[in-house]
Amino acid sequence: MYRTHTCGELRLADAGKEVKLAGWVQRSRKMGGMTFVDLRDRYGITQIVFESDANQDLCEAANKLGREFVINVTGTVAERTSKNANLPTGEIEIIAKELTVLNKSDVPPFTIEDDTDGGDDLRMRYRYLDLRRNAVRSNLELRHRMAFEIRRYLDQHGFLEVETPVLIKSTPEGARDFVVPSRMNPGEFYALPQSPQTFKQLLMVSGFDRYFQIVKCFRDEDLRADRQPEFTQIDCEMSFVEQEDVLQMFEGLVKHIFRYVKDIDFKEPFPRMTWADAQRLYGSDKPDTRFGMEFVELKDLTAGSGFSVMDEAEYVGAIVAPGCADYTRKQLDGLTDFVKRPQIGAKGMMWVKFEADGSIKSSVGKFFTDEQIKAWGERAGANPGDLMLILAGQTAKTRKQLCELRLEMGSRLGLRDPQKFSCLWVIDFPLFEWDDETSRYYAMHHPFTAPNPDDIDKLETDTGSVRATAYDMVVNGNELGGGSIRIHDAALQDTMFRLLGLSEQEAQYKFGFLMNAFKFGAPPHGGLAFGFDRFVSILAGLDSIRDVIAFPKNNAGRDMMIDAPAEIDQSQLDELKIALALPEEK
Amino acid sequence: MYRTHTCGELRLADAGKEVKLAGWVQRSRKMGGMTFVDLRDRYGITQIVFESDANQDLCEAANKLGREFVINVTGTVAERTSKNANLPTGEIEIIAKELTVLNKSDVPPFTIEDDTDGGDDLRMRYRYLDLRRNAVRSNLELRHRMAFEIRRYLDQHGFLEVETPVLIKSTPEGARDFVVPSRMNPGEFYALPQSPQTFKQLLMVSGFDRYFQIVKCFRDEDLRADRQPEFTQIDCEMSFVEQEDVLQMFEGLVKHIFRYVKDIDFKEPFPRMTWADAQRLYGSDKPDTRFGMEFVELKDLTAGSGFSVMDEAEYVGAIVAPGCADYTRKQLDGLTDFVKRPQIGAKGMMWVKFEADGSIKSSVGKFFTDEQIKAWGERAGANPGDLMLILAGQTAKTRKQLCELRLEMGSRLGLRDPQKFSCLWVIDFPLFEWDDETSRYYAMHHPFTAPNPDDIDKLETDTGSVRATAYDMVVNGNELGGGSIRIHDAALQDTMFRLLGLSEQEAQYKFGFLMNAFKFGAPPHGGLAFGFDRFVSILAGLDSIRDVIAFPKNNAGRDMMIDAPAEIDQSQLDELKIALALPEEK
Repeated sequence: MYRTHTCGELRLADAGKEVKLAGWVQRSRKMGGMTFVDLRDRYGITQIVFESDANQDLCEAANKLGREFVINVTGTVAERTSKNANLPTGEIEIIAKELTVLNKSDVPPFTIEDDTDGGDDLRMRYRYLDLRRNAVRSNLELRHRMAFEIRRYLDQHGFLEVETPVLIKSTPEGARDFVVPSRMNPGEFYALPQSPQTFKQLLMVSGFDRYFQIVKCFRDEDLRADRQPEFTQIDCEMSFVEQEDVLQMFEGLVKHIFRYVKDIDFKEPFPRMTWADAQRLYGSDKPDTRFGMEFVELKDLTAGSGFSVMDEAEYVGAIVAPGCADYTRKQLDGLTDFVKRPQIGAKGMMWVKFEADGSIKSSVGKFFTDEQIKAWGERAGANPGDLMLILAGQTAKTRKQLCELRLEMGSRLGLRDPQKFSCLWVIDFPLFEWDDETSRYYAMHHPFTAPNPDDIDKLETDTGSVRATAYDMVVNGNELGGGSIRIHDAALQDTMFRLLGLSEQEAQYKFGFLMNAFKFGAPPHGGLAFGFDRFVSILAGLDSIRDVIAFPKNNAGRDMMIDAPAEIDQSQLDELKIALALPEEK
Repeated sequence: MYRTHTCGELRLADAGKEVKLAGWVQRSRKMGGMTFVDLRDRYGITQIVFESDANQDLCEAANKLGREFVINVTGTVAERTSKNANLPTGEIEIIAKELTVLNKSDVPPFTIEDDTDGGDDLRMRYRYLDLRRNAVRSNLELRHRMAFEIRRYLDQHGFLEVETPVLIKSTPEGARDFVVPSRMNPGEFYALPQSPQTFKQLLMVSGFDRYFQIVKCFRDEDLRADRQPEFTQIDCEMSFVEQEDVLQMFEGLVKHIFRYVKDIDFKEPFPRMTWADAQRLYGSDKPDTRFGMEFVELKDLTAGSGFSVMDEAEYVGAIVAPGCADYTRKQLDGLTDFVKRPQIGAKGMMWVKFEADGSIKSSVGKFFTDEQIKAWGERAGANPGDLMLILAGQTAKTRKQLCELRLEMGSRLGLRDPQKFSCLWVIDFPLFEWDDETSRYYAMHHPFTAPNPDDIDKLETDTGSVRATAYDMVVNGNELGGGSIRIHDAALQDTMFRLLGLSEQEAQYKFGFLMNAFKFGAPPHGGLAFGFDRFVSILAGLDSIRDVIAFPKNNAGRDMMIDAPAEIDQSQLDELKIALALPEEK
């Protein structure tokens, strides 16, 4: 037996007990005739004392221990003279009697501390050491706890977890598939699922009624920051439901998680906002509602001044930053530079200071009277001491820019506390997106999303304005998940495919098995999928999903630790009946 | 709202209530002026009554319903005059007031009944309809329940579920990997994991202490019956443990599952048997211990009779089939034919009848006296009325043949009830297997398995006899899972690689990242993995794993329903910088 207790559980009440512990040497120090070793495992840290007077050999052995050595210690629990209130075990120490080195350790390439000295690349290459750090491990403990509580809630509500296949068929719609050559069927390939969408709909056709799965999905994309080629989804589907049923069920899930994992009780229903309002008020379909600072439209109030920037703009929008009228020239220039960055792309920024004394200063003062500007402030509810920031231009673009500016101001004003959580349903998404380049409509969600029943008569006549029965759950400005009520009617599905420019043949090729399944009695159904990695990272208060994944890949899709992907043997290629077709070296 | 209740929940106490149900038409029949419809959903079947007198139009609409139509019915719960005791809802029926057809259905290609008329291929092609059958769906409900209880037990015992990557690196040891070409790293491939073995060991190096995962694994094998290219494993690992700790923990898991899923309480510890004893007594490393009929060795008692079949045999073994002395010539010939089948490969079978009257009949009577044969019976504990069956030949081969014969007799005698469960640990597996063809040792489990501490001094001198610290959990003759204590010492691991004929370079190439990780303080650790598909199929009392998988593949690795694998677009191949290298048509 290697241990009687973990390194996290001994307390003052255990004093006098003979115990055996095992773990890693966090640090050791000599003081007087004693050597103190902090012994660490997943559960905590316990101080071990080796007394030179009592046992010189043992103490000398302890002095030879290096950082991260794995040791076994037998000894007696004793009350500490100088207690450490920061440590749950801080009232006791172990007076060592025996010491066994179970394994030595090379000096780790970075310190195993909350604030490590290791750079990103180094920590990824030695991820197994990075995972020893409390900060990283606690994220994965949180992930485990969340997955467990998600399953508990869904099980309580009659959902069945069903595993859908990983080796499926490529459907070249949307993002690129990863493919897998089939040795037994030469020339043919499996694809890895981007989501179990069609399978979960088939399970509804099968009468499973309530399905979920916490499941790996795959997308061969050029990785932007914070995307992973493999990611985890909480995939859910229900039969005989309308939108309201789905929202209630999964609002319940999110509240359950906050309650049981973060001890946060959301008593009120989550607010709901139409997609159109979210665009109008926040310039985004995933507004960060931890703070207000909603957009105010000023086009009508600014028209005809002769100031071309505003007069020629389709849209003039403002936000009011409370208490920022004292911003300096330099600070304002900084904000202007911020919105002019290529990622944001504004041409410039206008501002108005509603000074505390009631006077007005503005970058557009020569085009407008104080009275005119006061009218803007009244509309925006600006108070003395507030700063108004204004952007003008094409509507959609300017809203996006103003969205970025709003988030920036929120951050500067400390309104985006990662430990404060604001949840929101965004509903009534458009069903279609028009793409100028290819001159066709695309499904904003996916081609199985049902139109809003009130808009069905506009499908043919006013396609672009049709709303979907689709919804997103947004938390702190992140899309946590989204879904829709699906089309269960074959005729309506045919219409959708036609509007999306899919020929009958293409539709049959890509989705034939689903369409055929629908001929045998598909129930009304709908569902939703949460991004599990994102869900965990939000609750962990992290910006990136990478540190809630045990073994993540870098932006080139590479696992730095195991060095994958890698070349494979020619014999493997031969067996698979494929060949490399690399461009010739130049 | 589509329903107030499911089709499984209304009882006599609900009589008089106005309800709304939704589901599928299981069957309908006209009787007198009434039409009865059995409405089905996942939760049960409820009878709906349409009365022609009360509402002729409604009744006529009901008469037009076809099998598997999806309908919505509003009506009143009423007590049935002729109750159906076989149905939980059998005391009530719904007097229909409104009927809506939510979706029609083509006539399904086979009946949606427990005993369907559909053949295997047809059911696989229309798996979404097959899944509507109670028999199939209840297997997946069992699977969900088991997965949930497994997680509950492991969570209670401090295990963390950690997701390990699916896109990893090919290690051409053991079975073939499925590979995934990397578009971002042309010429390089990911591989799909055959198991998370190395990752779980890395998590132990990371100090995760107790890890588990219910996880898809992949093996590109030529599929024998009842193998799937993707399968699910319950993968577990623990730190600071010896074999006894692991056995206790996972015996506890198996007992927990039987208790909470099957309501079966195993009060006694599971028996343990060495691998050598399992071979000696059952000719197998996964004996079916639902019944006895252990092997009895007779070589010493049969020697020197002049009967060359026995005299020249390395091994003579027998089983005793209780009460079978009345077997006819034809039955005995049938058994002889059974063991002579090429899959089994015996040259013949000998038999002795210990007749009820004390007399002896035997196929080898001319070589042995009754006294001699009685001695065999005494050793075997044969009683009057029993039949002894004897095989002779090379030890390992003959034991395998006798194993098959024993299982056959067990089946014939009804001793292999699928609802009776016998669990067993097989321990002390050999560490190595010698392969004549390649003249080298192979790891019987895998190259990280620790030798039995008592046998370490024999590693170099008597390699073949070294026992591993490896164990299998066997249930009803199936290997439910297995594992081992791992080598945590780099020097011992080097020795193992050398004994397995892996050069330092090969070992470094294949397992380098694990070996490097071990340099930074690896704790003693061990674990085990259960085959989840098999675990479910055993509890479901099924022979095949296929019907506990929602969307299985056939023996050619093909998903008949979605028709995968399939050809992919040339543009996909181009992007991946690979080409097909198919043999030319002849």
